[in-house]
Amino acid sequence: MLGGTIRAVGFIGLGIMGGNMAGHIQQAGYALHVHNRTRAKAEPLIARGAVWHDTVADLVAACDAVITIVGYPVDVRQVYLGETGLIANARPGTLLIDMTTSNPSLARLIADSARLRGVASLDAPVSGGEAGAKDARLAIMVGGAAEEVARAMPLFEAMGRTIRHLGPAGAGQHAKAANQILVAAMLMGIAESVAYVKRSGLEPAAVLEVLGAGSAASPLLSVQAPKMIAGDYAAGSHVHHFLKDMGIAIEEAAAMGLDLPALDLSKSRFEELTALGYGTDGTQALSRLYEDDLGS
Amino acid sequence: MLGGTIRAVGFIGLGIMGGNMAGHIQQAGYALHVHNRTRAKAEPLIARGAVWHDTVADLVAACDAVITIVGYPVDVRQVYLGETGLIANARPGTLLIDMTTSNPSLARLIADSARLRGVASLDAPVSGGEAGAKDARLAIMVGGAAEEVARAMPLFEAMGRTIRHLGPAGAGQHAKAANQILVAAMLMGIAESVAYVKRSGLEPAAVLEVLGAGSAASPLLSVQAPKMIAGDYAAGSHVHHFLKDMGIAIEEAAAMGLDLPALDLSKSRFEELTALGYGTDGTQALSRLYEDDLGS
Repeated sequence: MLGGTIRAVGFIGLGIMGGNMAGHIQQAGYALHVHNRTRAKAEPLIARGAVWHDTVADLVAACDAVITIVGYPVDVRQVYLGETGLIANARPGTLLIDMTTSNPSLARLIADSARLRGVASLDAPVSGGEAGAKDARLAIMVGGAAEEVARAMPLFEAMGRTIRHLGPAGAGQHAKAANQILVAAMLMGIAESVAYVKRSGLEPAAVLEVLGAGSAASPLLSVQAPKMIAGDYAAGSHVHHFLKDMGIAIEEAAAMGLDLPALDLSKSRFEELTALGYGTDGTQALSRLYEDDLGS
Repeated sequence: MLGGTIRAVGFIGLGIMGGNMAGHIQQAGYALHVHNRTRAKAEPLIARGAVWHDTVADLVAACDAVITIVGYPVDVRQVYLGETGLIANARPGTLLIDMTTSNPSLARLIADSARLRGVASLDAPVSGGEAGAKDARLAIMVGGAAEEVARAMPLFEAMGRTIRHLGPAGAGQHAKAANQILVAAMLMGIAESVAYVKRSGLEPAAVLEVLGAGSAASPLLSVQAPKMIAGDYAAGSHVHHFLKDMGIAIEEAAAMGLDLPALDLSKSRFEELTALGYGTDGTQALSRLYEDDLGS
């Protein structure tokens, strides 16, 4: 173990997921330090005592641990690496935890770079969506050294319920990719099932109730199918973020010589959706592709 | 309502599902009458007092209600229609309940034919698999007239837990098609996710535990992923039966002008599996297509 007790915790990335997760860290009694591209999203946390920092470098210098959950791997790279990044400006022993869905290979690069400067790092992406973040019952998939996972555990426990250490750096990201591969196919199945029910003239809510009591029941079905039925396409989980997740999984699978045709199909369907102008919708907007009038 | 109190119940089709379901009918105190292509499968029920009939016509003549769960729509047609079938040989008021996964259009044809002879019929396919059949917690999707559904309810309650009347004749089959559309995509997602986890070198059981705690958790994942990981491809739910289910859904969707590309892909993947000689495996054998050596 490189560092000591964690008291001051930095949080970078205060979107739908990060904003809720940072709130739980604050409620657990840690001194919260925040930085975000848009300061406005930090205001509720600042109002409850969080300390704002204008730069990543300033933030990390004040913290024992920093949690990040930003948009894309390119953002992760920028926040962690380079002269203005977390690793270059962290005190030795600082624990850096990336909870963004990002590349396993980037997680390994960050771990190696951090180790060279006496800094610890973990990759710890999550599943459970907005509801899971709000209710602190996320599933957290962790990659990194066992002693650092143990050190981070109180932080994880403030945000999640099912926390598993799955292997060395990158293992968390690999597990998240596996999760998104499953979700990619499920979203297609849910959209096609809802489309079929609508066309067949059945009462969608009644059918959903019985499907939700059988083998195919899932939290994803319970959350997304009613939105599809109601035509409520507001994000939630953005189409363009999910396309990023699928891109990571396809790239990693290809590097392992693995062909995943259902994942390929799902990616191409979401690309169609983006081409139609719906990239900022929630992933449930996939059901738009099954409407008679695509423009509706 | 056409008939009176149900005391004698016939059961035709004593496979993995039907055998368990008929046992629950017997345990609920009904006088059970049985017929099956292979008599051996009826022996455990006969040993507990069920009456064997050599023909469908003999069976239905002795019963107030008859439940069928056979293999294919062609079997349903043979059991119900024609001179030797259920409808021609039923007493007026007899209630016929088909729980096979079959065509909505065939369910409507049976309902019309039955009505002409003063016989009642329902389509009531199920979800929940072998475990659901064994534990009497099936989801049951019912199509037909409300008064006949009410009359059948004690029978359904002996076999299932979530029972929904979804509309007129054919509505149960439509709902089951919607269920299988969802399952078809989920099986691809589970197989691809498991394949990815295996290749990435993670401990599959640990990853499965965390996936099973997130948005993508489902009974199907809990049952099928461990079998895929273990290489246990014994049926369960047969590949060739599932291909039949997908064929019905594709045909019905096409008739409604609905294109379902994920379902099409799943069907073609299972056809690949059948072409390789695995048609009598369980549906979890889909993961064979992602193995390095397909022949293993």
